[in-house]
Amino acid sequence: MTSVFENEDLDHDSVENSMQPADSPELRALYEGFDAEHLMPLWTQIDDLMPMSPKPKAVPHVWKWSTLNALARQSGDLVPVGRGGERRAIGLANPGLGGRPYVSPTMWAAIQYLGPKETAPEHRHSQNAFRFVVEGQGVWTVVNGDPVRMSRGDFLLTPGWNFHGHHNETDEPMAWIDGLDIPFSYQNDVGFFEFGSDRVTDYATPNYSRSERLWCHPGLRPLSGIQNTVSSPIGAYRWEFTDRALTEQLLLEDEGQPATVEQGHAAIRYVNPTTGGDVMPTIRAEFHRLRPGTATPARREVGSCVFQVFEGTGAVILAGQETRLEVGDLFVVPSWVPWSVQAESQLDLFRFSDAPIMERLHFDRTHIEGTDR
Amino acid sequence: MTSVFENEDLDHDSVENSMQPADSPELRALYEGFDAEHLMPLWTQIDDLMPMSPKPKAVPHVWKWSTLNALARQSGDLVPVGRGGERRAIGLANPGLGGRPYVSPTMWAAIQYLGPKETAPEHRHSQNAFRFVVEGQGVWTVVNGDPVRMSRGDFLLTPGWNFHGHHNETDEPMAWIDGLDIPFSYQNDVGFFEFGSDRVTDYATPNYSRSERLWCHPGLRPLSGIQNTVSSPIGAYRWEFTDRALTEQLLLEDEGQPATVEQGHAAIRYVNPTTGGDVMPTIRAEFHRLRPGTATPARREVGSCVFQVFEGTGAVILAGQETRLEVGDLFVVPSWVPWSVQAESQLDLFRFSDAPIMERLHFDRTHIEGTDR
Amino acid sequence: MTSVFENEDLDHDSVENSMQPADSPELRALYEGFDAEHLMPLWTQIDDLMPMSPKPKAVPHVWKWSTLNALARQSGDLVPVGRGGERRAIGLANPGLGGRPYVSPTMWAAIQYLGPKETAPEHRHSQNAFRFVVEGQGVWTVVNGDPVRMSRGDFLLTPGWNFHGHHNETDEPMAWIDGLDIPFSYQNDVGFFEFGSDRVTDYATPNYSRSERLWCHPGLRPLSGIQNTVSSPIGAYRWEFTDRALTEQLLLEDEGQPATVEQGHAAIRYVNPTTGGDVMPTIRAEFHRLRPGTATPARREVGSCVFQVFEGTGAVILAGQETRLEVGDLFVVPSWVPWSVQAESQLDLFRFSDAPIMERLHFDRTHIEGTDR
Amino acid sequence: MTSVFENEDLDHDSVENSMQPADSPELRALYEGFDAEHLMPLWTQIDDLMPMSPKPKAVPHVWKWSTLNALARQSGDLVPVGRGGERRAIGLANPGLGGRPYVSPTMWAAIQYLGPKETAPEHRHSQNAFRFVVEGQGVWTVVNGDPVRMSRGDFLLTPGWNFHGHHNETDEPMAWIDGLDIPFSYQNDVGFFEFGSDRVTDYATPNYSRSERLWCHPGLRPLSGIQNTVSSPIGAYRWEFTDRALTEQLLLEDEGQPATVEQGHAAIRYVNPTTGGDVMPTIRAEFHRLRPGTATPARREVGSCVFQVFEGTGAVILAGQETRLEVGDLFVVPSWVPWSVQAESQLDLFRFSDAPIMERLHFDRTHIEGTDR
Repeated sequence: MTSVFENEDLDHDSVENSMQPADSPELRALYEGFDAEHLMPLWTQIDDLMPMSPKPKAVPHVWKWSTLNALARQSGDLVPVGRGGERRAIGLANPGLGGRPYVSPTMWAAIQYLGPKETAPEHRHSQNAFRFVVEGQGVWTVVNGDPVRMSRGDFLLTPGWNFHGHHNETDEPMAWIDGLDIPFSYQNDVGFFEFGSDRVTDYATPNYSRSERLWCHPGLRPLSGIQNTVSSPIGAYRWEFTDRALTEQLLLEDEGQPATVEQGHAAIRYVNPTTGGDVMPTIRAEFHRLRPGTATPARREVGSCVFQVFEGTGAVILAGQETRLEVGDLFVVPSWVPWSVQAESQLDLFRFSDAPIMERLHFDRTHIEGTDR
Repeated sequence: MTSVFENEDLDHDSVENSMQPADSPELRALYEGFDAEHLMPLWTQIDDLMPMSPKPKAVPHVWKWSTLNALARQSGDLVPVGRGGERRAIGLANPGLGGRPYVSPTMWAAIQYLGPKETAPEHRHSQNAFRFVVEGQGVWTVVNGDPVRMSRGDFLLTPGWNFHGHHNETDEPMAWIDGLDIPFSYQNDVGFFEFGSDRVTDYATPNYSRSERLWCHPGLRPLSGIQNTVSSPIGAYRWEFTDRALTEQLLLEDEGQPATVEQGHAAIRYVNPTTGGDVMPTIRAEFHRLRPGTATPARREVGSCVFQVFEGTGAVILAGQETRLEVGDLFVVPSWVPWSVQAESQLDLFRFSDAPIMERLHFDRTHIEGTDR
Repeated sequence: MTSVFENEDLDHDSVENSMQPADSPELRALYEGFDAEHLMPLWTQIDDLMPMSPKPKAVPHVWKWSTLNALARQSGDLVPVGRGGERRAIGLANPGLGGRPYVSPTMWAAIQYLGPKETAPEHRHSQNAFRFVVEGQGVWTVVNGDPVRMSRGDFLLTPGWNFHGHHNETDEPMAWIDGLDIPFSYQNDVGFFEFGSDRVTDYATPNYSRSERLWCHPGLRPLSGIQNTVSSPIGAYRWEFTDRALTEQLLLEDEGQPATVEQGHAAIRYVNPTTGGDVMPTIRAEFHRLRPGTATPARREVGSCVFQVFEGTGAVILAGQETRLEVGDLFVVPSWVPWSVQAESQLDLFRFSDAPIMERLHFDRTHIEGTDR
Repeated sequence: MTSVFENEDLDHDSVENSMQPADSPELRALYEGFDAEHLMPLWTQIDDLMPMSPKPKAVPHVWKWSTLNALARQSGDLVPVGRGGERRAIGLANPGLGGRPYVSPTMWAAIQYLGPKETAPEHRHSQNAFRFVVEGQGVWTVVNGDPVRMSRGDFLLTPGWNFHGHHNETDEPMAWIDGLDIPFSYQNDVGFFEFGSDRVTDYATPNYSRSERLWCHPGLRPLSGIQNTVSSPIGAYRWEFTDRALTEQLLLEDEGQPATVEQGHAAIRYVNPTTGGDVMPTIRAEFHRLRPGTATPARREVGSCVFQVFEGTGAVILAGQETRLEVGDLFVVPSWVPWSVQAESQLDLFRFSDAPIMERLHFDRTHIEGTDR
């Protein structure tokens, strides 16, 4: 499998296309026949259709949180939230994807904004969704009737076909990011959608959702929940647990014990406790912490991912181009684009990706530059 | 899960979008800000992005084999086969997909044509491929060095990253259909490609490939092949076995035994013998036989599929529109479009689909009209 | 599958054995021939060999903790702990199993006792082991070099082939129960054993083991531990989490939410976080809490299990016979023996069983009396 | 994991048991207390209970087919077949297993004999069963109402809880071997049993069972049977397929292709076509063919197996002791006993084992002498 990396110069461009016939009236007639019959020849398309390695139209891009946040606030002033539009969410539109609201070919990423005392009405859809909170608090998301508090650092799930709405209990607005598989669902025509209650079904504001009270006990599984579920039953993965897990990994590394993925780089994956696998069938979510001064080796991966800086400063190098990062900044890594991250301070990064799609369909590949992996 | 079918009239169109603000200079400035920062709001996009049920851009369509075959023959006269273009394959381009060579959002289907004594050079790619032979013989496809005879009714595999080339041993041309996951791979940026030998690596013409000699013994597995493989190790699924399996199902039905999927409708799935599952991670393949006079109930399924008539005459009803079918005709069923087939004579149908994608990602749904399934 | 329960009167005893031939010299010669050639006929054995439903030789039995504890203390005075005998463990010997140290045909259960400042030397074996602590503290078990604190209510693992030893840091003795699959391993000849260090390899006494620091964060998985493991990587399941999980289930029940397995009966299973499945391939472990006054319906299950009372008082009815229960008491339920538990006070019960064996080999069956399950 | 093989001399015998206290009145009182309370100490039992490597009580043994067959014929004369005794089956009783009718701790193997026109009545049981036919023909086994022909070289299944009976259509007696998991079921108390019809429910004598007509088409799966089943749905694995599969492996080896498990040694495993895995949850079945002069390396495996010579002559070396083999001879290999087979002529061997138990519970280990595997 490694030869593809070594022979990347032997590509379509280096090979004469021996199948390009000379122009002739007969050929034109043939091509017109193709058009009339809804046909297209491979021999004129193959360079684009079947590249030597992934050539994504999506491009690497960084969005600044300060800019996103300001535009979201303005939306809060100008655009009401309610039925029909459903959410005051502003999607990151990859500059390479021709004006579609897709952060990558598979994923939607948006900043969602809810003003003081506002409610976003309930609905459900096949698309799998999560939220991640880089700052703020005061909103509860109600998932199938279970109110889930949203606070800084929390990762929250609304897997496909679960009713959900949000409401802001406070006098302050709140913004967070949403991630969904909308582009994948749209492209492959898999989406169903249903309206629910115009108000959320339960305005209670408990500290912990019922899903957490049932499921968030390490290594324990309720006997009433012994059937595996396609997606995680946990509504919220709390920051306190994520922070503690990463802290312990770095402490263990200090003690000379195996715990981190590479020197100075702690990381956890959010998982479905019924299987140990990804939280949802199409979306992987992880949290990474780099010690000050740590730089990850350049990696290429099949599939796309998005990072958001949660804490600290540093830089990302995407296809050789470096961009400085601050809290809240988001960047997308399209398929097979080399990326590495450098931590100035301790750097905390939330990450999500379409890796479950790639793995379940056996398209996953990783290459770490300078290695034969 | 059934409410979505019952409430299809309660859709986006029936709901006022309460989030459409009145035009104003401030709103225009906001929207310009979105554009400048590569952002797009959900509230103007949701009707298209998240329909109440799949609204595929792909449309149902029937291609006549007689037309395809004639154009393929003309291509044989005008277009050489060889390195660069790689294959004399003419892709079915769904009329709804804007001039892309995609039969559906996920799948490529093409007629491939190889003239007397011609060779299509070896290459390999991540994309999964199969061939199905509706007529003719005389070509061998060489898969990782194993020559595989291609004859009428055979279903042949070249799973991702296996080197393969073809050569025609005879003085007659041969045409068959190719199916691949090219659109899915292209859309999601997963494809790798590598050139191999300009000639096939083995011009032997055995009746049975080594893969068949090792693997095609019912219920038996070679101990040397006891590790499971991602895709089926079988190079060719021979018509004689398919025909016999279907014949037996109908005979068993005659004897009052459970064997068919529904009255008068025999069917088999081609499987990976190491797992009992689909032959490749992205493509399902099946063969269906209807007794004369049998009509299947109208079905909607998430995901797209393509049928080719192998033998007999009948009709297909796609979204309410009936088209007559003859040997070799192909038709595509986009996601969630109701379809049914009616057999005039005994009707033999080859079918392939993206069902493994839908099932592995848990987007699969089926609705049979007139039932609560 | 239910007919077996309804027709239990139609058993071997109700059927004349039509194959019992009259005695004759020829028959005797035949039977002698069998003996000489190491053969035995089925027709004389079948009633015993293949009963209508499981007829375990193991019998229900209750062991009193006060008695066990007293004998363990005496052993502490009389028997040194060390290499060769390896552990000061006293196995529960089911009265029906003919003097073998088996609590059931598959499982070993013992009280283990470690005096002040004593060390039990390191070794490893194929047999899977756990410990459960009904009282006391002060011992650390060192599993593959990782010191794991043992305290009241903790459930601790040493899966097959992990080196482990114990040491008591205090001036007080400590006793706990061990559970292993020794009888199963012995019967089926699967066991390997290896001596390790005569002292434990690390006398540190941390509050939390490295395994817990890496793995005990709910819903989070270290990226460094992303490969699944046959057994759970968690060294200790702490009482505080078990207690909290059960408390929350009962609170949720109070709130009218689904959370308990049946009214007044909260329960968790200890699981392998990499799979969501049982902690070890042969042993299931659970903890049950009954509200005061709760009585479980009589259940029969294929496979055997052992309970230990952790807190509270109540009674168990085993095959119709009731025995009062106090803290620390242990009882065994052989296969298919009906059992139910009644809580006087709130009753906390630790349970372990061979259910993973039964389920993986598809022998599992459950019958709840008075239902058609 | 290899150290256990290298350090086998460091075993219990080489270590002084430091826990054997000096005899004293107090110690005697303690041990009497243990007895009275149904307790047994580990420190007096561990050498036997937890050996350094498996020390099976079962011993290697060879049974001669000529002897078995003669005794079975005598049974046919003296013992009627019918309800109660159920089958005229004579079990191989391992000389090491104390007079139990067990060929190994997990498995039953028997010669079953059915005289001209006799019927063995229908019943069903949890125990999994197969038959293998080393000679003869003329019996049909009726499995859940499906008549299955039994002929030389066929391997036939009656998985747990399927009704089955047999009848001999001819004027000649027929004998074959039965394999079941009776000892495992008995030991672990998992067995249920139910009587069925006193006569078989269908006396038809078709060449192929319905199960074969539905399932025995290589690489094809009926859509009506798309749900996986715990055990194989195939009633009979015919000799013609087994023979052909092995013949092809040796031909491929002649052609320099990878196909055999080792030089001169072809082998297949019988599998469940719905999963590619073992035919039943507790029993593995294989067929091996050695070229003349081939000798397999000495292997030790955890778990026990039985071989029957189907054709040819050769020898088996069991724990260093060689025995000559002829057609029909059976031998048992207890756990971890080294075995190798030598072919004089071409040697065809049927084999069954408890390997699925070992693998599902992760006790499997193999050691090939002279290697580090």
